[in-house]
Amino acid sequence: MPVGTQATVKTLTPEELARAGAEIIVCNTYHLYLRPGHERVRRLGGLHSFMGWDGCILTDSGGFQVYSLAALSRVSDDGAEFQSHVDGSRHFFTPELVMQVQAALGSDIAMCLDECPAYPVSRERAEQALERTSVWAGRCRQAAGPGQTVFGIVQGATYLDLRRRSADELVALDFPGYALGGLCLGEPSELTYELAAAVKERLPGGKPSYLMGAGYPEDIIAAVGQGIDMFDCVLPTRNGRTGAAFTATGALAIRNARFADDPEPLDPGCGCYTCLKFSRAYLRHLFIAGEALGPKLLTLHNVWFFQALMRGIRQSIADGKWREWSREFLARYGAEGPSGRAGPEDRTKEE
Amino acid sequence: MPVGTQATVKTLTPEELARAGAEIIVCNTYHLYLRPGHERVRRLGGLHSFMGWDGCILTDSGGFQVYSLAALSRVSDDGAEFQSHVDGSRHFFTPELVMQVQAALGSDIAMCLDECPAYPVSRERAEQALERTSVWAGRCRQAAGPGQTVFGIVQGATYLDLRRRSADELVALDFPGYALGGLCLGEPSELTYELAAAVKERLPGGKPSYLMGAGYPEDIIAAVGQGIDMFDCVLPTRNGRTGAAFTATGALAIRNARFADDPEPLDPGCGCYTCLKFSRAYLRHLFIAGEALGPKLLTLHNVWFFQALMRGIRQSIADGKWREWSREFLARYGAEGPSGRAGPEDRTKEE
Repeated sequence: MPVGTQATVKTLTPEELARAGAEIIVCNTYHLYLRPGHERVRRLGGLHSFMGWDGCILTDSGGFQVYSLAALSRVSDDGAEFQSHVDGSRHFFTPELVMQVQAALGSDIAMCLDECPAYPVSRERAEQALERTSVWAGRCRQAAGPGQTVFGIVQGATYLDLRRRSADELVALDFPGYALGGLCLGEPSELTYELAAAVKERLPGGKPSYLMGAGYPEDIIAAVGQGIDMFDCVLPTRNGRTGAAFTATGALAIRNARFADDPEPLDPGCGCYTCLKFSRAYLRHLFIAGEALGPKLLTLHNVWFFQALMRGIRQSIADGKWREWSREFLARYGAEGPSGRAGPEDRTKEE
Repeated sequence: MPVGTQATVKTLTPEELARAGAEIIVCNTYHLYLRPGHERVRRLGGLHSFMGWDGCILTDSGGFQVYSLAALSRVSDDGAEFQSHVDGSRHFFTPELVMQVQAALGSDIAMCLDECPAYPVSRERAEQALERTSVWAGRCRQAAGPGQTVFGIVQGATYLDLRRRSADELVALDFPGYALGGLCLGEPSELTYELAAAVKERLPGGKPSYLMGAGYPEDIIAAVGQGIDMFDCVLPTRNGRTGAAFTATGALAIRNARFADDPEPLDPGCGCYTCLKFSRAYLRHLFIAGEALGPKLLTLHNVWFFQALMRGIRQSIADGKWREWSREFLARYGAEGPSGRAGPEDRTKEE
C-alpha cells in the first residue's frame, strides 16, 4: 500500500497511482485530524471524494504518530494527550475519538488506537503498552460504527511471548483483520521475521494480516513467506523523492555521475511511464537541476515497482511457484541484505 | 508557449502538457548549454527525445539569460563573456556558437543571439545594443544550419524610432519569423503595446511575430489585437507553483482561508484534470500542508487556462468575432488592470 499520509501520495495524482496498479493506499488519522480536520473532510464528502481516489483507503489510527511526531504530554489508560507538530495545539486521542475520526474520514479499513513504544524498549514498558493496546482495542471494537471495518494491532515489542499474548488477546475480540505494529523500527530484520512468524501462528488463517511499516523488497518477500498479506511503507515514495530507484537488479542512485550519458531506462524490464519514456540521463538531469519532475517520475516508477512485486508474488503463489519465484527474484535483486541476514531459503522457511 | 527552461515544464510530464493542449514549448539555450550540455543532449538524440516531448520546441538564444542570470564579465562585438550561475565557470557566447548549440539541441525554432538591456536603459545604450543585435542577427542567419528555422529578435528598448530601425534591419535579413525582445521587463503595459504596434507595422504580414515574455491574459489579448501571434511566459507555471490560479473571472490565491471548505473546482467552466477532479478545499489543503501535488495541479490548470485562452482567441478570429470575444473575455475576467491601463476597446484599437 503506497502511503498517502496527508490525503496525497506525495507527487502523484490519483490517476497515476491507479495506472501504477495501486488498489489501496494508507492515509493517516493523526495528520488528517490535525489538518485539514476530519469534520471538514466529512463535509466535503469523505476522504475518497476529497482526494479523488476511487480505490480503497486504510487509515492508520495515529497511535504511531502520536508517539513519533507529536510532543507527547501524557498517556494514560484513558488515551493519549499530545501537542500538534503543526501548531503546538493540545489534543487528546481516545480509542472512541480515533474511531469517530476515521468514520468521518470514511476510510474502508480503520485501525485501532494502539500504544507503540519505540525500539528498543524494556519488557516492563512493552508489557504495559501491550495491555493498554488490548484494552483500547476492545473500546475501538465497541466504538466502531456499523459499516466500519476495524483491524486490531498486535504489540509486544521484541518479546516473543508478549507478541503471542497480544495476538491472543486481540483474536479474542474477533477483528476482521490483524496488523503487526511496533516492528520495522530499526530492530534486526531476522528478529522482525521471527516475531512476525510467531504472531502469524496465533492469527486465524482466513483473515488478512498486515505488517505495518514494511518495507524493502527482501523484507516483504520474507514476510509473505510467513503468511503476511499486507504491507505499507514510505520507501517507494520517500526514496523516489531523494533519487533512489528500485529496479529488478537492486537499487540505483540516479544522481550518480555514471548515469549522465546513460540512454537506458531506470529498469529495462519495467513498464511504467517513467521507464517507457525517459532515460537515466534525463532523470539524472532533472535531479541535478533541482526539477520537480525528477522526484515525481522516480516516485511513479518506485510505486509501480512495488505493485509489480506484489503482483508477481500473488501470481507465483497462485501458480504454486512461490518458492522458486522468490528465490529467483532475490538472486536477481542481489540483496544479500545488510549485516549477515540469512539467505532466501531461510527467510521463506515458514511458507 | 509554456516555458520549459531546463528541458522540463516545471512539475508537468510531457503527456500532461500535451493533454493541456500545448503544441509548442520554449526551452533555453543558456541553461541547457550549461547543464546538461548541448553535446550530451545531441548524443542522447536531441531535445525532443531527451525530454520525451513530441511537440514543437522553440529555444531562446540565451541572450536574455546572459544579461539577467549570469555574472556578465564582458560584452563586445564578438559576443558575450559570462560566468555560469551554476558553477561560476567562464564561457563565451558568440552568434555562431549559439546557433551551433541550438542545432545540437535540435529545436524546431532557434532564436538569434541578441543584446537585451534591462529596463530602463539610456537611448545611447539602447542604440548600441540594437546595432550589436543587428550585426549578430546577420551572423546567426549565416551560421544557421540548412534545416534550422531562425527568428530574429527586435531590440531598441522603449524608443519608438529605435524599435522601427531594429525591425527594418532585421527584415532586411529576411527571417522566417520575428520576435520582440527586451519588452515585458517592467515598463508600463501601454508602452509595451505601443512599441509592439510600431514594430508590427514594419514586419512582413505573412510571417509570425512573437512577443517574448508576455504575459497576463490582458497583455496577450492586447498584443493579439496588434497582430502578434506568439507568446511565452513563466506566469502559468510560476504562479501555479506559488498557489495563484488563473480563472475566467480573474486570479485566485488558493491559500486563502475562504477556500478551506469550498467544494467548487478552481474554475467551474474549466475542463482540465485539476478542475474535473479536485475542489478548491483540497487544493488549498495541499498547499497548506506543503504537498508537491498542489503546485503541480495548479500548474496543470494554469497551462490549460492559457491554452484555452489561445484557442478562444484563434476561434474568435476565425469566426470574425474577435472584437466582441475579447471584450467579453476581459469584462468577465475583471481585469481593470494595474495603474490606469486603458479599457479593452483601446487595447484592441490596432486590430
